[in-house]
Amino acid sequence: MTITGKQLIGGEWTQGEAGSFHGANPQNGQKLQPAISTASSRQVEAAVRMAEAASKKFRHTSPSIRAAFLRNCAEQIMALGDELLERLSAETGYPRGRAEMERGRTCGQLRMFADYIETGAHLDARIDTALPERQPFPRPDLRHLNQPIGPVVVFGASNFPLAFSVAGGDTASALAAGCPVIVKGHPSHPGTSELVAQAIAKAVTQADLPRGVFSYLIDEGHTVGALLVKAPAVRAVGFTGSFAGGTALMALANERPDPIPVFAEMGSSNPIFLLPQALQQNGANIAQGFVGSFTLGSGQFCVKPGLLIAVDGEPLQAFIATAKKLVEEIPAPVMLNDRICQTFQRSMSSRSSDAGLEVVAQGKPLHDVDGYFAQVTLFTTSAQTILEHPELMEETFGPASVIIKCRDREEMLKVARRLPGQLTATVQCITDELAEYGELLDQLAETAGRVVVNGFPTGVEVCHSMVHGGPFPATSDRRFTSVGTNAILRFLRPVCYQNYPEALLPPALRNNNPLGIPRLINGVRTSEALK
Amino acid sequence: MTITGKQLIGGEWTQGEAGSFHGANPQNGQKLQPAISTASSRQVEAAVRMAEAASKKFRHTSPSIRAAFLRNCAEQIMALGDELLERLSAETGYPRGRAEMERGRTCGQLRMFADYIETGAHLDARIDTALPERQPFPRPDLRHLNQPIGPVVVFGASNFPLAFSVAGGDTASALAAGCPVIVKGHPSHPGTSELVAQAIAKAVTQADLPRGVFSYLIDEGHTVGALLVKAPAVRAVGFTGSFAGGTALMALANERPDPIPVFAEMGSSNPIFLLPQALQQNGANIAQGFVGSFTLGSGQFCVKPGLLIAVDGEPLQAFIATAKKLVEEIPAPVMLNDRICQTFQRSMSSRSSDAGLEVVAQGKPLHDVDGYFAQVTLFTTSAQTILEHPELMEETFGPASVIIKCRDREEMLKVARRLPGQLTATVQCITDELAEYGELLDQLAETAGRVVVNGFPTGVEVCHSMVHGGPFPATSDRRFTSVGTNAILRFLRPVCYQNYPEALLPPALRNNNPLGIPRLINGVRTSEALK
Repeated sequence: MTITGKQLIGGEWTQGEAGSFHGANPQNGQKLQPAISTASSRQVEAAVRMAEAASKKFRHTSPSIRAAFLRNCAEQIMALGDELLERLSAETGYPRGRAEMERGRTCGQLRMFADYIETGAHLDARIDTALPERQPFPRPDLRHLNQPIGPVVVFGASNFPLAFSVAGGDTASALAAGCPVIVKGHPSHPGTSELVAQAIAKAVTQADLPRGVFSYLIDEGHTVGALLVKAPAVRAVGFTGSFAGGTALMALANERPDPIPVFAEMGSSNPIFLLPQALQQNGANIAQGFVGSFTLGSGQFCVKPGLLIAVDGEPLQAFIATAKKLVEEIPAPVMLNDRICQTFQRSMSSRSSDAGLEVVAQGKPLHDVDGYFAQVTLFTTSAQTILEHPELMEETFGPASVIIKCRDREEMLKVARRLPGQLTATVQCITDELAEYGELLDQLAETAGRVVVNGFPTGVEVCHSMVHGGPFPATSDRRFTSVGTNAILRFLRPVCYQNYPEALLPPALRNNNPLGIPRLINGVRTSEALK
Repeated sequence: MTITGKQLIGGEWTQGEAGSFHGANPQNGQKLQPAISTASSRQVEAAVRMAEAASKKFRHTSPSIRAAFLRNCAEQIMALGDELLERLSAETGYPRGRAEMERGRTCGQLRMFADYIETGAHLDARIDTALPERQPFPRPDLRHLNQPIGPVVVFGASNFPLAFSVAGGDTASALAAGCPVIVKGHPSHPGTSELVAQAIAKAVTQADLPRGVFSYLIDEGHTVGALLVKAPAVRAVGFTGSFAGGTALMALANERPDPIPVFAEMGSSNPIFLLPQALQQNGANIAQGFVGSFTLGSGQFCVKPGLLIAVDGEPLQAFIATAKKLVEEIPAPVMLNDRICQTFQRSMSSRSSDAGLEVVAQGKPLHDVDGYFAQVTLFTTSAQTILEHPELMEETFGPASVIIKCRDREEMLKVARRLPGQLTATVQCITDELAEYGELLDQLAETAGRVVVNGFPTGVEVCHSMVHGGPFPATSDRRFTSVGTNAILRFLRPVCYQNYPEALLPPALRNNNPLGIPRLINGVRTSEALK
């Protein structure tokens, strides 16, 4: 494949009409070729118009057609081969291993949704049969089915150029639901994004789907994204990124004449509560895990542990000493792009000069090069300081974390109660001591979408049980997850068919159950036909 | 029971601190006793504080405890006996039969949610077991459960003083989910509301639940409601009422530091598409059904058919003549309150003087009394007028409807495409002619939450398959229903438990499956224990 810098508008690759920009290699700051053209408002409208038209047909495709299409998307991505992996590394600074792993995750997600929609579980098919003799009124025949919500806009994320980007979880779940997708590519990895868009476009053609089922647009700023969120035919938005970005999209969506849901995953600080006995007995190991987790991928994960909370004393001092030694050995990691790198550096400067935070360890200093490198930094502070300045609990995107020293268990609990909404919260403990911390666990299950015992938050498993979500500001809506099979629920809406002639019902609701899916018939779950 | 005019704040009945008002009998406009006291901001805060505290315990109650509590709520409402029915009629003008039916529906809903949560279906329990040997990384044990979202504020509706009010569908589904509820009573039926609140309070006491599980506050205006929606501990809002009211609450919820979901059902025009053959063969019967449906309950249903669309010609003229005759026989019905009555009258005056709408029939003129009576009104207009003035498609709350005359099928489709989001859309047809109207049916399934064939939209069945929802402006979020068992989904959020010790897991997720509920274990649905 060749990277052309073009936009994909309903199957056609065309030059963007609103200027151009270049990607950059974060290792050396050098421009990457070719120039990436930028979509105009006319082009945005064209993509939306085609998505709207495609929606009318795509919504009627059977789950098995869409499943085959999703599996072929995965195959086409694999077929991009080394070119994809190399471009990804050049655009993000991620090593080859990470690129391969993320590709595996992305293709695995596409296949997982393919398998899932074939079970029909997402449809929530329900039938309540007519009761013509019922008094005082007969009951009509009523049938319930989840239907695709309509065209979805997906914003690519900077930190997962494959798994949360062009063909990432939002796209996969929206397509699986039967919704056309328009991707707004992230300017930090435009070549990677275009290659993946080429793969999806191929799969659309091979499946003979309406061409508007998938479009890919990009610009360097916020113009294209804002136009997409405001477009009348767009029905939902998926976003993974910063708090500022997510809340801006939420505001735009709420200002529409018809507000639409924005599912924004905006990251969090992912606190680790380190309980006394675990600290005492296993501090050194946990320190190693903690440092590994907060510096993994240059600390550029939404689930990076940015806070560690423990009771102060000799064991915590030993823990900090171990962590310090580990941190000091870490070479300055490369960041995704110039803006993220600078934001991190600014945050480190302001935090270092902050009266309440103390730098206890720094990684190896920056290379003397033009790349976007950062220095790993570990802070300590007191619970009292954090409680007085809760803004210090906010996420820092990059390889930094804060150890919060508490006087006692009660102060630990106070910190837990003051935490803003989180994607994850972790407890490191000896199992026996957990009984005393029931209140802490309860609080964390209210604060976070996922509670981890004796693990680290990094590593978001793609499976049925995953919740990658959580209360605001971690996400815009705590009722949903953006990872795992239930991510599809964001892009479905229920429709009730009353007294429909059999032949006009969607296949999933016909008496003979041609899809062979489980249905709730008069309150009883069965995969049998309705007699 | 005695109606005291007090507020219920976490089990305590106390006089409101912010003034008082009186209910009125819409039949004669006379004040009803006693004076109803109004909650102060301090009292609102107290109720929220108690709900927050109660939430921490209530969330851990088993489904069977909550089911027994919901069933007892129904029993306690029945035990209010005639006093409830009489007060309801005095406050709303609804006849005894309607009061009884609505009581039956309300108690039926409470029992339906009791039955439903005992099946565990709402929990979406999922387990993905650990894969310690997996390469390159082991998979941890991951378990997924829907948990209550936290304290919910429910606004009583004017038109359903029982079924969409103090112990209506929002309250029943929130309590079933495990969420404490604070009801803001509707000032149009304060005595009815207080009686029901007394019944619920009794059930809370008898179940020995935390007293903050249920509170009941009221005022005549918007102060109490706004304070509740802005209260930090409140996690979701249920509302059934006007577009102005619903969108005001949405705006308040979005302005919070942490936006929360408002589930607002704001009504719609519920168009009926009358296809040519049905009109020809069955016009007179359909006219009777149509007039009955749009005047039922004084036209004060969210699903009142406010639009009827048909191709013009002799059959439609005959249809209109039949409808006219029927309308002219209908005595002026009583409206719920002074404000609703006046709004309806104003709407009729402005619509009658509107160049595009023609009054073809009016019911019997108003009584010469002080009550809040309205005159049934039927309009006609052309599709062209409607397409030029789409605001004429908006809901009028009361006994009025508009017949839209189309030139042909294509113009009918044009009207369908221009419709704003609807709770329901109906097609009256001969089955054979439906094949030609596939595009119409498709469009209606996108526009409405429920599509009815050869029926009328009034009569919202409470069952598994019901969808009482639909695209904005019918509701705030098309992904949910406020009637039927899935209404509970509004008040749940998923939580993932990673690597939890068995003993600390919620019972629904323990290996031995003590609740005996269906679970998705490694992708397979089973009610068996996990070995």
